[in-house]
Amino acid sequence: MPRIPAYAALDAASPLVPYGIERREPGPRDVVIDILYCGVCHSDIHQARNEWGRSIFPMVPGHEIVGRVARIGAEVERHRVGDAVGVGCFVDSCRRCGQCRAGEEQFCEARPSDTYNSYERDAEHRFDRSRPTHGGYSTSITVDEAYVLRIPAGMPLDRAAPLLCAGITTYSPLRHFGLEAGDRVAVVGLGGLGHMAVKLAAAMGARVTVLSTSESKRADAAGLGAHDFAATRDGTVFKAMAGQFDLVIDTVSAAHDYNAYLGLLKVDGTMVLLGIPDAPQPVAAGALIMKRRRLAGSLIGGIRETQEMLDFCAAHGVAADIELIDIADINSAYERMLAGDVRYRFVIDLASLRDDG
Amino acid sequence: MPRIPAYAALDAASPLVPYGIERREPGPRDVVIDILYCGVCHSDIHQARNEWGRSIFPMVPGHEIVGRVARIGAEVERHRVGDAVGVGCFVDSCRRCGQCRAGEEQFCEARPSDTYNSYERDAEHRFDRSRPTHGGYSTSITVDEAYVLRIPAGMPLDRAAPLLCAGITTYSPLRHFGLEAGDRVAVVGLGGLGHMAVKLAAAMGARVTVLSTSESKRADAAGLGAHDFAATRDGTVFKAMAGQFDLVIDTVSAAHDYNAYLGLLKVDGTMVLLGIPDAPQPVAAGALIMKRRRLAGSLIGGIRETQEMLDFCAAHGVAADIELIDIADINSAYERMLAGDVRYRFVIDLASLRDDG
Repeated sequence: MPRIPAYAALDAASPLVPYGIERREPGPRDVVIDILYCGVCHSDIHQARNEWGRSIFPMVPGHEIVGRVARIGAEVERHRVGDAVGVGCFVDSCRRCGQCRAGEEQFCEARPSDTYNSYERDAEHRFDRSRPTHGGYSTSITVDEAYVLRIPAGMPLDRAAPLLCAGITTYSPLRHFGLEAGDRVAVVGLGGLGHMAVKLAAAMGARVTVLSTSESKRADAAGLGAHDFAATRDGTVFKAMAGQFDLVIDTVSAAHDYNAYLGLLKVDGTMVLLGIPDAPQPVAAGALIMKRRRLAGSLIGGIRETQEMLDFCAAHGVAADIELIDIADINSAYERMLAGDVRYRFVIDLASLRDDG
Repeated sequence: MPRIPAYAALDAASPLVPYGIERREPGPRDVVIDILYCGVCHSDIHQARNEWGRSIFPMVPGHEIVGRVARIGAEVERHRVGDAVGVGCFVDSCRRCGQCRAGEEQFCEARPSDTYNSYERDAEHRFDRSRPTHGGYSTSITVDEAYVLRIPAGMPLDRAAPLLCAGITTYSPLRHFGLEAGDRVAVVGLGGLGHMAVKLAAAMGARVTVLSTSESKRADAAGLGAHDFAATRDGTVFKAMAGQFDLVIDTVSAAHDYNAYLGLLKVDGTMVLLGIPDAPQPVAAGALIMKRRRLAGSLIGGIRETQEMLDFCAAHGVAADIELIDIADINSAYERMLAGDVRYRFVIDLASLRDDG
């Protein structure tokens, strides 16, 4: 098979470099996708640098993939050649467990095959540890049709790419924890996840307040559709807005005081964690008990809900705010992300890898 | 008015002593109750000793009250003279806020009038800070009929008393967080709350596992209706039972590792905190995110739900396991509670106070 152009981390300490990968020969239910765009998620950096301790090298990151169907297997029913399609954080799962059968493949009891830094599956849908998965920093990917999303007509393909992770990561908790039109939502942190949470919650009819450490993002918050903004650095907001919110979507992965944010919730309110600080953060039982509050977590979403999210975004004109880059700029993009210098998602234009190839 | 016999804490440092109190002249909607039994809740000790910093002295504790109606006001409709009735953790609330109107008076936005260590309300249902409330360590109490519960026929009155706090504190989260027959519940800690959680969850058809630090309560757990028991001291249970529970009811107020217990939950499982450790406990975001778990709190219940709980207990033959004491033994009972030496609730027989009077 021809080697497919990609960018890979060869080890945890080196910058990403051009690299050739193989993709499997498509089976009867496989879809071969020419990748057009791939969003750059913060977890790409964590995994490329082995900061979570489970990295498989060489690693081709990227799980916010949008492209067009180039070939299909004989039994493929859901997608046709030429269709705009997407691939998110996983490309397979066991298909047998209660979670898979419920369409919550992200919680597959045998673990899903993540789009990269994981393993493909054999004919019995068990991990094949001889075949690592490789992600979207490449020009082509082969995926079982059941794990391929339809990109609705009219959606800008480059701005759709981050929906496959940042979009579903924020859409799912808004739905799962029962957001209703008119509810008040606080979005903590205005980065890749936060900017999607603002757009999606506003599109669902919620009244959205952005909480950010500094004043510098006030104008941006309004531009994204937030109704209100508060800087948290001086702490007065925690008294001024105490008990006002139905839902707090917390996208911050730096250490911060959960109890201060829990205090913003009404009775029966829920704070949903999407970021993972390096260390556990103290939680005061009284903050939960006295108003029957909940502190929860949420993890991307299943295939069905991801499709629902894409259709919702198309219906409401929601897409990510992006900065399009050439793949040769990926290492400097990582540095800019670490400095918070992106509004709000880098997306790789894979044409830049085809030109190189 | 005649002084009513009671036992009071005169300050935070002294044992409780005999004391005479006044009760208000009953209004048209008031019920005068001859108190027969009063359960002894751990929070009585905290408040008598001002460990929560908001104590009003002299203080007559007690919020697990069962008695018989002695007199009723002219407009009382819900209760008759001679009825067996109960009073729980609060005796009034603002009656106007959304929570009061929803029957969740425990979350009254103007704060409820707690049964003791709080204030009665004026004609406009605002706090009257000249009139502190006094609880059930006394022979009589006067309460608006809307805050008085019916004790179902046939229920043993002494064993019913702890239902008014320990019962509703454990019943409410089992219902609110959606326990269904066949679900697996872990009850952490086998004290006054824990033993009620076991009985109630088992009566609801759940499969109940008791988790206790030591082996010593294994037989008791089985006797209360638990299906399974595990000692937590050596930690192996956290691996052996990982991901198995729909609900964890955590009654422990000593410091403990929330993350270990969160790991016992299935996807979408909820751990409900009922105890308040002295300091906030660390929570790992990943423990919540990776299985969309929830860490929640719960606070007693509203009047409607408390009545529902009493009716449920009567229908299922559930009541507290108690040790009946004379009120003169209250100070030694406190010491025994602090040593964990009670199975599972002390209940004061107020006949012992009438004999003294």
